[in-house]
Amino acid sequence: MRRATQSPYVIGIDFGTLSARAILVDARNGRELASAISEYPHGVIEGSLGKTPLKSQSALQDPRDYLHALKEVVPAVLRKGKIRGDQVAGLGTDFTSCTVLPVFANGEPLSFDKGLAKNPHSWVKLWKHHAAQPEADLINEIGQRRSEQFIPTYGGKYSSEWFFSKVLETVREAPQVYRAADRFIEAGDWIVWRLTGRETRNVSAAGFKGMRVHANGSDWAYPSAEFFAELHPELARVVEEKISGPVLGLGSSAGGLTAEWAEALRLRPGIPVATGNIDAHAGVPACGVTKPGSLVMIMGTSTCHLLIGEQKQEVEGICGVVQDGIVPGCWGYEAGQAGVGDMLGWFVDHRAPKYVHDEARRKGLSIHDLFSEQAAKLRPGESGLLALDWWNGNRSVLVDADLAGVLVGLTLQTRPHEIYRALIEATAFGTRQIVNAFTSKGIAIDEIFACGGLAQKNPLLMQIYADVLQRPIKVAGVQEASAFGAAMFGAVAAGIHPDIHAAASKMAPRPKKTYKPNAENRALYDALFMEYDKLHDYFGRDKNSVLKKLLRIRRKGK
Amino acid sequence: MRRATQSPYVIGIDFGTLSARAILVDARNGRELASAISEYPHGVIEGSLGKTPLKSQSALQDPRDYLHALKEVVPAVLRKGKIRGDQVAGLGTDFTSCTVLPVFANGEPLSFDKGLAKNPHSWVKLWKHHAAQPEADLINEIGQRRSEQFIPTYGGKYSSEWFFSKVLETVREAPQVYRAADRFIEAGDWIVWRLTGRETRNVSAAGFKGMRVHANGSDWAYPSAEFFAELHPELARVVEEKISGPVLGLGSSAGGLTAEWAEALRLRPGIPVATGNIDAHAGVPACGVTKPGSLVMIMGTSTCHLLIGEQKQEVEGICGVVQDGIVPGCWGYEAGQAGVGDMLGWFVDHRAPKYVHDEARRKGLSIHDLFSEQAAKLRPGESGLLALDWWNGNRSVLVDADLAGVLVGLTLQTRPHEIYRALIEATAFGTRQIVNAFTSKGIAIDEIFACGGLAQKNPLLMQIYADVLQRPIKVAGVQEASAFGAAMFGAVAAGIHPDIHAAASKMAPRPKKTYKPNAENRALYDALFMEYDKLHDYFGRDKNSVLKKLLRIRRKGK
Repeated sequence: MRRATQSPYVIGIDFGTLSARAILVDARNGRELASAISEYPHGVIEGSLGKTPLKSQSALQDPRDYLHALKEVVPAVLRKGKIRGDQVAGLGTDFTSCTVLPVFANGEPLSFDKGLAKNPHSWVKLWKHHAAQPEADLINEIGQRRSEQFIPTYGGKYSSEWFFSKVLETVREAPQVYRAADRFIEAGDWIVWRLTGRETRNVSAAGFKGMRVHANGSDWAYPSAEFFAELHPELARVVEEKISGPVLGLGSSAGGLTAEWAEALRLRPGIPVATGNIDAHAGVPACGVTKPGSLVMIMGTSTCHLLIGEQKQEVEGICGVVQDGIVPGCWGYEAGQAGVGDMLGWFVDHRAPKYVHDEARRKGLSIHDLFSEQAAKLRPGESGLLALDWWNGNRSVLVDADLAGVLVGLTLQTRPHEIYRALIEATAFGTRQIVNAFTSKGIAIDEIFACGGLAQKNPLLMQIYADVLQRPIKVAGVQEASAFGAAMFGAVAAGIHPDIHAAASKMAPRPKKTYKPNAENRALYDALFMEYDKLHDYFGRDKNSVLKKLLRIRRKGK
Repeated sequence: MRRATQSPYVIGIDFGTLSARAILVDARNGRELASAISEYPHGVIEGSLGKTPLKSQSALQDPRDYLHALKEVVPAVLRKGKIRGDQVAGLGTDFTSCTVLPVFANGEPLSFDKGLAKNPHSWVKLWKHHAAQPEADLINEIGQRRSEQFIPTYGGKYSSEWFFSKVLETVREAPQVYRAADRFIEAGDWIVWRLTGRETRNVSAAGFKGMRVHANGSDWAYPSAEFFAELHPELARVVEEKISGPVLGLGSSAGGLTAEWAEALRLRPGIPVATGNIDAHAGVPACGVTKPGSLVMIMGTSTCHLLIGEQKQEVEGICGVVQDGIVPGCWGYEAGQAGVGDMLGWFVDHRAPKYVHDEARRKGLSIHDLFSEQAAKLRPGESGLLALDWWNGNRSVLVDADLAGVLVGLTLQTRPHEIYRALIEATAFGTRQIVNAFTSKGIAIDEIFACGGLAQKNPLLMQIYADVLQRPIKVAGVQEASAFGAAMFGAVAAGIHPDIHAAASKMAPRPKKTYKPNAENRALYDALFMEYDKLHDYFGRDKNSVLKKLLRIRRKGK
């Protein structure tokens, strides 16, 4: 680790799905001096690539967009924050994941090559590129048969979104691209490579998405060559040939900023650049969380649950568990709910009747706010409604994208705001189910934090979560938790703070609000959760449940 | 039975919930010459009676309204049909049921008495007066304990809507009214009493609502004095004191029209007036149905299923089975679904989003028609949705007003017209459940007829019923089946036809349309019905089902 420099400023850069955002922070106290955002010129490439039609569920990106945004946002925060470039001591980044691209040995993307650029597989496959489901199915089938360690580590199932599903899709559909690629790499590691001139990988993405997992009681390992050869003969040496190399812990410096990039960003050459990180994960220390027993919920269209644990445990239906994966020195657990804000948005878009629109306009409220105002007056259970929150499938505990939503207790007297509340409650019960999956394995959850859009904007929802979980929930004091966390890891890489614990204690703002559980609602919510749990198992665990049969009927009818 | 007169015209008068309607028919061929409608000035009295607040779920009427409407509609059809009053050979009526009032020995309602009029119990309790649920509960408790015959006859449960629930409510809450009443009578029998000056009761209402039931292999009987005394000491002699008297078969003449009413209605004195009848029941012969093995569905806000059978069978969860109760010489069975058109109306009112309103306006369609147009393009099962149609409870087979609706299979891609179709399908599955309840007991259903607003107006719904039941469904050729059927029974009472079979063969129009089952949809609907049946038992049969628990939680929270 480098010695602390005199200069206390750091920059965190968050590469999202549609844009990149930078924030400039004083590492001594966490004061945010400026932020800037730049949209990717090509956004998400779907449907077709130029004139080439894309497979259904494809979602690509152009790596030039990341570089373009980088050159905009860093000088912008310097300008806005009135800080000279040579006052910046370090950089940190975070990126969507698993977002993967094939590159040449020098780090140049294959999509920069005129000939290869015509093939969609030469481009960045964005996290939400879901076209590799057949590959994921094969990986799970072979992985389960061979009892590969990644299967329990990933809660029983490897996702179509992840690293080797995407690479396997490439080797199966475009072997010439696979062969031309010297390396496959997470976009978050690639951007760090660009900035430092040095190829590294981060322990978090490698662990959570890339099959670099720990067997119980042993060190980490990738699956064997035999496993990869079974997936596809050309993959037998994929680890050695296309992936191997240094895997660095979070907060390590991946290298110094190159002269070329220092000039482009108006920064000092050689300042440390932190190793890459996953966007949601970077938000955890930004909430002030670095100790075991803390759960952070990143709540937006979907919810990501990140838990810091002291040891590894197999937990049903989690997304993954990785040593040093969120905070160095601890085990990081990830779980999630696939539809939260999305489901409420669906309800507002497709189920709000005209009279609700009229009333909202009259009162000058959004539909969400009108529903919240009305729903806040209801007692738990008053509407007689109960829902299963699976409008977008179930990510944890059941890990089943084929499940769908259920709504129970409708009558001629049921009104829209009652359903709105029932949907919120259902997502809270879904979180309680996840919390129970951890605590039933003896993994402590002492504190719960929330960040993201829903946590900031929907107080009714937050209070219901506190009541359903019967625990206080602390809403993060930062608005842009990921970029802020990236800046914190940048401060550690720059040696301003000795580790992420120290960085968090100095930099993370105090929670801006704590929602306290209302003890009066405890018994009612306990009773309602028992019914939720009953429906959860009835519809979710049986392979011949009504939901499964409906899906089969739906497919048979085609 | 009287001899046929020369004059072939008859009038049928249907007393509905909000209005009375008369039609003038040529009994030789069923040609409808005129119809007229008159709304009741006081409609349904709810909330308060003058300044007296009413109990929740009370629904009263003013008997003067019936007389007022009668004096309007009969002269109106003569005028419109250009028929002289002395050309009318007979009258028939039908009435909502169970609609009950207390009267003096001369037939004068207690509500006409200034002193008694202040008490709500002196007024007509309309069929949908649901305030007597505690009384119905007591009747069922004591009836079950004593193994009274009315319990199996009524499918296991006596309703809060029915005769003795309402009378028991009166004696418990207003003993002075009970004592002042010389008689309690169905409004349908009371109107016939007014017209003829003679107190009679009709076999149908007495059997379906009034506990005048057949034990297996024996003649009819009311429950014993011991039973009534257990309900309330003052009820011990209720049958002898307040109810006994002639009970006449359908199509019998209850007497000749009085001189006073002949003058008021501009008809000939002494013409036969048919005995009273229940409104839905009167519609059966109007569909041309008088033989065993025929099911008639009267489809509107709710659906009433009337089946003609050859013998008595105990069938789970039917409303009742009565000898001569629908067609003389046969057993009449009644079953029902509590929310059909109502539920679709709820969906349109409270769940149609703004963009659907906009599109309907642009296309010049009603919301129902727009949804139907879109839903007609879906294959069975295509939406992945399935519902339980219990928005207004379950009337048959489960007989449980506390059940509520369930909607399964919702996703972020679910659109409103898909739910609209799922609700229609759910009501069709509910009817299939009822059909199965009959046929599983060996009661034949050879033909299915439909009448009522939904049958006339919603072709998508009718086709789905034909497909789900995999049977042709014949839509009645009459628009106003009840009034038409009343006219047919009037023609029998007048001796124009020897019996209702002959009347039906001469007068009932042919079905206006037959919906034929689409064999391609059979397998898909069989598969969907299996899932419906699974949910039906899971949510409906268990006393600790999620729906029951939700109701308990709802009540506990109060």
